Amino acid sequence: MDFSNFIPKHMEKRGKIVLEENLSILNKILKQRSIPDEGIKEELIELLLYNLSLMDTDKDPKAIRIGEREARVYTKLQERSVFYFNHGVGRSGNLIDPQPKAPGASIMYKLTNQLLESFLKKLGLKVNAIATPVATGMSIALCLSALRRIYRVEEIVYPFAAHKSPIKAISLVGLRMRLVETKLYGDVVKAPVEDIERAIKKGNSAVLSTLTFFPPREEDVVEIAKICEEYNVPHIINAAYAIQNNYYIDKLKKALKYRVDAIVSSTDKNLFTPIGGGIIYTKDQKFLREISLSYPGRASANPIANTLISLLAIGFKKYRELMKEQKESKKLLEELLEELAKKINERVLDVKNPIASAITTKKDPVDVAGKLYNLRVTGPRGVRRGDKFGTSYLGVYPYNYIGVNASI
Amino acid sequence: MDFSNFIPKHMEKRGKIVLEENLSILNKILKQRSIPDEGIKEELIELLLYNLSLMDTDKDPKAIRIGEREARVYTKLQERSVFYFNHGVGRSGNLIDPQPKAPGASIMYKLTNQLLESFLKKLGLKVNAIATPVATGMSIALCLSALRRIYRVEEIVYPFAAHKSPIKAISLVGLRMRLVETKLYGDVVKAPVEDIERAIKKGNSAVLSTLTFFPPREEDVVEIAKICEEYNVPHIINAAYAIQNNYYIDKLKKALKYRVDAIVSSTDKNLFTPIGGGIIYTKDQKFLREISLSYPGRASANPIANTLISLLAIGFKKYRELMKEQKESKKLLEELLEELAKKINERVLDVKNPIASAITTKKDPVDVAGKLYNLRVTGPRGVRRGDKFGTSYLGVYPYNYIGVNASI
Amino acid sequence: MDFSNFIPKHMEKRGKIVLEENLSILNKILKQRSIPDEGIKEELIELLLYNLSLMDTDKDPKAIRIGEREARVYTKLQERSVFYFNHGVGRSGNLIDPQPKAPGASIMYKLTNQLLESFLKKLGLKVNAIATPVATGMSIALCLSALRRIYRVEEIVYPFAAHKSPIKAISLVGLRMRLVETKLYGDVVKAPVEDIERAIKKGNSAVLSTLTFFPPREEDVVEIAKICEEYNVPHIINAAYAIQNNYYIDKLKKALKYRVDAIVSSTDKNLFTPIGGGIIYTKDQKFLREISLSYPGRASANPIANTLISLLAIGFKKYRELMKEQKESKKLLEELLEELAKKINERVLDVKNPIASAITTKKDPVDVAGKLYNLRVTGPRGVRRGDKFGTSYLGVYPYNYIGVNASI
Amino acid sequence: MDFSNFIPKHMEKRGKIVLEENLSILNKILKQRSIPDEGIKEELIELLLYNLSLMDTDKDPKAIRIGEREARVYTKLQERSVFYFNHGVGRSGNLIDPQPKAPGASIMYKLTNQLLESFLKKLGLKVNAIATPVATGMSIALCLSALRRIYRVEEIVYPFAAHKSPIKAISLVGLRMRLVETKLYGDVVKAPVEDIERAIKKGNSAVLSTLTFFPPREEDVVEIAKICEEYNVPHIINAAYAIQNNYYIDKLKKALKYRVDAIVSSTDKNLFTPIGGGIIYTKDQKFLREISLSYPGRASANPIANTLISLLAIGFKKYRELMKEQKESKKLLEELLEELAKKINERVLDVKNPIASAITTKKDPVDVAGKLYNLRVTGPRGVRRGDKFGTSYLGVYPYNYIGVNASI
Repeated sequence: MDFSNFIPKHMEKRGKIVLEENLSILNKILKQRSIPDEGIKEELIELLLYNLSLMDTDKDPKAIRIGEREARVYTKLQERSVFYFNHGVGRSGNLIDPQPKAPGASIMYKLTNQLLESFLKKLGLKVNAIATPVATGMSIALCLSALRRIYRVEEIVYPFAAHKSPIKAISLVGLRMRLVETKLYGDVVKAPVEDIERAIKKGNSAVLSTLTFFPPREEDVVEIAKICEEYNVPHIINAAYAIQNNYYIDKLKKALKYRVDAIVSSTDKNLFTPIGGGIIYTKDQKFLREISLSYPGRASANPIANTLISLLAIGFKKYRELMKEQKESKKLLEELLEELAKKINERVLDVKNPIASAITTKKDPVDVAGKLYNLRVTGPRGVRRGDKFGTSYLGVYPYNYIGVNASI
Repeated sequence: MDFSNFIPKHMEKRGKIVLEENLSILNKILKQRSIPDEGIKEELIELLLYNLSLMDTDKDPKAIRIGEREARVYTKLQERSVFYFNHGVGRSGNLIDPQPKAPGASIMYKLTNQLLESFLKKLGLKVNAIATPVATGMSIALCLSALRRIYRVEEIVYPFAAHKSPIKAISLVGLRMRLVETKLYGDVVKAPVEDIERAIKKGNSAVLSTLTFFPPREEDVVEIAKICEEYNVPHIINAAYAIQNNYYIDKLKKALKYRVDAIVSSTDKNLFTPIGGGIIYTKDQKFLREISLSYPGRASANPIANTLISLLAIGFKKYRELMKEQKESKKLLEELLEELAKKINERVLDVKNPIASAITTKKDPVDVAGKLYNLRVTGPRGVRRGDKFGTSYLGVYPYNYIGVNASI
Repeated sequence: MDFSNFIPKHMEKRGKIVLEENLSILNKILKQRSIPDEGIKEELIELLLYNLSLMDTDKDPKAIRIGEREARVYTKLQERSVFYFNHGVGRSGNLIDPQPKAPGASIMYKLTNQLLESFLKKLGLKVNAIATPVATGMSIALCLSALRRIYRVEEIVYPFAAHKSPIKAISLVGLRMRLVETKLYGDVVKAPVEDIERAIKKGNSAVLSTLTFFPPREEDVVEIAKICEEYNVPHIINAAYAIQNNYYIDKLKKALKYRVDAIVSSTDKNLFTPIGGGIIYTKDQKFLREISLSYPGRASANPIANTLISLLAIGFKKYRELMKEQKESKKLLEELLEELAKKINERVLDVKNPIASAITTKKDPVDVAGKLYNLRVTGPRGVRRGDKFGTSYLGVYPYNYIGVNASI
Repeated sequence: MDFSNFIPKHMEKRGKIVLEENLSILNKILKQRSIPDEGIKEELIELLLYNLSLMDTDKDPKAIRIGEREARVYTKLQERSVFYFNHGVGRSGNLIDPQPKAPGASIMYKLTNQLLESFLKKLGLKVNAIATPVATGMSIALCLSALRRIYRVEEIVYPFAAHKSPIKAISLVGLRMRLVETKLYGDVVKAPVEDIERAIKKGNSAVLSTLTFFPPREEDVVEIAKICEEYNVPHIINAAYAIQNNYYIDKLKKALKYRVDAIVSSTDKNLFTPIGGGIIYTKDQKFLREISLSYPGRASANPIANTLISLLAIGFKKYRELMKEQKESKKLLEELLEELAKKINERVLDVKNPIASAITTKKDPVDVAGKLYNLRVTGPRGVRRGDKFGTSYLGVYPYNYIGVNASI
């Protein structure tokens, strides 16, 4: 826009410099396609989104829309809620393919994926990545469906984890699930690697492993990646909230040296978006494309735009600070729990976990957590020793316990 | 809120009456759970959504959130985009189950479904209904997955239709597709009922039929529902933009007398939401619940809230007016096309369709549509006679043609 | 912003064309500085305002603000409410002078004034104009204060009108008011021109006349402008809601041939803004500048931006349509009132007025209007014959009456 | 709103508790009419404003508005910008009087004034207060106009201060200004008390004193209040940004023991609103009412609502913290300047000022500040010794200097 000749030249110049400075922040991102170091103000992000949405064909002021059925939205309230990307994202053929009706939304999506890749790269993960308009569970389903198409997988080996969504995802895409039961190793609950190995061999399998657990369950993605490599078996990792912590990132880095076909993480847990978006990343660009082909039709632009907003608004520097804080909080939590344990004659479970800890209790843990909940202390989870889903252990765990998190 | 004793009593009384009058509009809807006759103002809808979102536990001002990983959103911009329903909708177990962390979003979802049912009922469809947070294609996938779980369906009989998303949906959930090829009946392209019948018999089949077509394809859902009834075969109808027109609604009413397990429609095409939401409805409440169990995990609240906003903002009276207008537009379109056809020595295709018409052309239809597109007349679709996907006909269609819509 | 190389060239091209088309609407306005013929979409207006606000120095991302006391706003909610023009408008020296800290707001203000002038010109008023950040009453005060500074005016001759704000304006700036009483001419209440003439002669006077009245008061601005011309006496016209009607505009055109120093109108009554803004216009550009010098300090940017938004969103074509509608409504109102009057044996007052009519009543008119008010029919005003302020007549008017409007 | 019977009772109960807890925060404020201790979230503030705006008669869904000319706003964008208070605030008779058409806006205004009073009281100022919809300059004008009406004041004694707005305010209301020239006392520039005393005696005077200065000017409001008490002369204090600092508050407390008719402060400088609002406070409730009677007509609700938002969003606890921070920043600034002065052989001016400091310079100070400005270090002000307006001294000041602030 040309704002010349309204006010005296020296003021105009100043104004233009400030505007240019602001726009240059956006242009730099558009050019470098990398998560900015410093987070960006909301109003600048809005400006970017508004400009992009004005590229979508439903915004064409000169278009004569004969009987068009699309992208006509009843209220401003609704349009705003998708940042004016009324056409959504994706194409009937492929989620990440540019949509001819929506060049703006298509660029927005592409930019999101590129910033996401740069973000993961800066964290040490040299992968290709896409943001998905669905949360972790459905994103896993997309991966599994791609596995079947490409590798004729018929069965998913699932080392038992106390999460329902992945099991539902397996069911949605119509694969058989082969559960590998967990065993006790001191306080730790873990699926024996040799059992996983045995399960793999039985057919056209792939493994869906889990990285981010509550104690007492411990992860073993690197070992699984090794076996998958050895037996040439596809491997998806459910890494829901892994991106926020270096311990997990290191595990992923190591696993990626062996067989990992795709990793799925959540945007709400790692990037502070509202619930509804996912991230899928992998070194196997071809497989990533295949995953994107799994999605039937178009989807709301809201979750993608929200992932973009988070990447822009947080910035890499702040994200690293948040990661550092999380680490310190976890350390503090451990110290406090140890102290408390001594005082009340209980134990902190000896389980490796960079985010959560758990303390044994002789009381009814569900009752304790319930009381805390009523006191509106949310977060702590009480698990009874016999609760298979809580302990991730199909037998009876030695202790009742209460789990506490220190997440980002 | 108590606004007493700030201003003189008579003014206070007036103010309270006006406020009460406004709130009573909302309360009436909450009580009757029926789409309002008159559409509601955006600011009132916002008030409803704000009040509901203040019920979600992440809004608890007294909560002590120890290490909570959820519903912390980085910017106001993002929170607003989901109407502050940061927790999303659904539960890992079931899409429509209330989520303990999000009583507000759960009520919002329930209300949406109830208004949706009342809306469909008023249109003559006595069905149970749910809004889904995904568009038509993925909603069909949810139905198909439920079919497999309940009826052990292995194969989807698919009378050929020129839509990619349903085919993708079949692929996502890992079912076999048995295509029933279409044949020519004068200008009309149709899948022969006897071919569908034959296909059904071959195994553990279900049928995915289509109601809303572009010419020259004509629908046959009632006939298919009859065969499905006869052979006891499940039947899903893809009724993408059917709700806007009584011709289609009548077809659905008739089909529902026979075997129909679920009908899927779009919210953007029928209810003017941004792309991203779907509607699934059926007389079989148990099956509807099973469909909702297909969804793995939680989802963005945005598409559900947008469906609710449309229902509230449009109101039933206005919707009926829009339907009437659509009918009149279609009639006008037909007249204009007939006139044009005579003038340029072409024909309007003799195909029954309440929304779209098509006119033959001796020129290259893709070229013509492209020129129109460049003139920014969007809407018209040029289809070459050999374009299998365009004509829904695997052979060569007698004419090149251009399709034009007159949708709601 | 450079959105190149994200998506295939042909889509990118389309997107850029649509964006350019949208931006060209804004650029055309920035270039022509004329009210657009077609109204502009809200999102485009927002884009313009956002770009401008990013020119203000408080938005400078590189500025090091040592101890700055300005333009730091506590919530996004507040920033949005002034369209991010946190610095406000004006300079301590002059309301319409560019503010070095706020080049964006300064351009916004300048643009508003230029569009306003083009708007008035298109309506037939060749004047200079400024938008003020205060409503009619305070805008009149600014004019009166300028009169004193320039013409050493000591007394304002005020042909009696039933409006409190102008009287308050006279009082605020500390001028004496000389009331010219109205007399009865049939149904009409009017200030005798000869009385005004007599009042003028008595000192260092100026006249504050009124154009827009409720019946039975009738205006006489042209006559007053003639006398003011003759006696070389300054003349301000309170033309609160005159812009919406050609009858009034014609009166102003005629008056402007004689002595008119400034005309004041409201933005809420003529341009559908929220209450809070004014318009001052005149052929005397030097005096207009003097008026702008009356304002002590800076002011909220909100009323100015709201005037700009109205001009852009309505567009001239729509405004003319609204004017036409108003005229037709008035005609209809007159017919209905005549009919009613015959039926209930009352009279429609024989008073020239392009917007309002009045019907006599034998009942207590305040009571009738009150009952209507309680039935929530707002608008009608019941006036008792002895109500000096209601009738604009210091004596007793022959009838009780009820006034009804048909405004834009 | 009744959200019962949508979801299971235990979840419903939880949701209702959270909602109630949120509403109780608002209700507590409505009951206690006191600035909250803890700041309130934006979405809760919006909820309050939305509910209030739904009391205004233009929101009456049942009203039949015959020819109404008011509160019809063209775009949502504009409505939002005044928080839906389309009617504005004030009444033609009195700025703070409830407006029958706008019970909601009237309550909002009343609440703002009450919170403001509680805020000032907590700071130690037992005064009555009103928020004004205009900035400091115009607020001073309102006070001055009231002075004339009540005390027949004809002349304003103005101890010279380098601010244009107060001088403009005197001019707007048509009072004579008697300037009291400042003199040098070491580094300090001050108006001699005896000169003020002498000026007072000369006629129907009132004094407009200033509290918040840049160095080298020093304030003397307590002394002036004493003389005004002695000579029974009205006294207005321009205390633009005084509320943020205890030094100034103490001065006001002391002055209030003698003659102070009204104090004027800014909302943008003290309460982080966008520019456009003012605060007037005094122990003389009757005079405060008279001031509110000065305002001719209604005004935009935006500045009032923004003052309310700040009071609610900041909360008293945070405000006290900000005050503490300001004090510490000032201390740090002083130390840094002393250090710098030693290094470059200059002096920090020996002038008492709780917010700003100044350092002498042998270079051209305007040039230095200009260079800093171009380096985009905003804030510092370079003043040449001969600059009467900069130094507040009509003679030549001994030094060129650069002033630096450390404001809240």
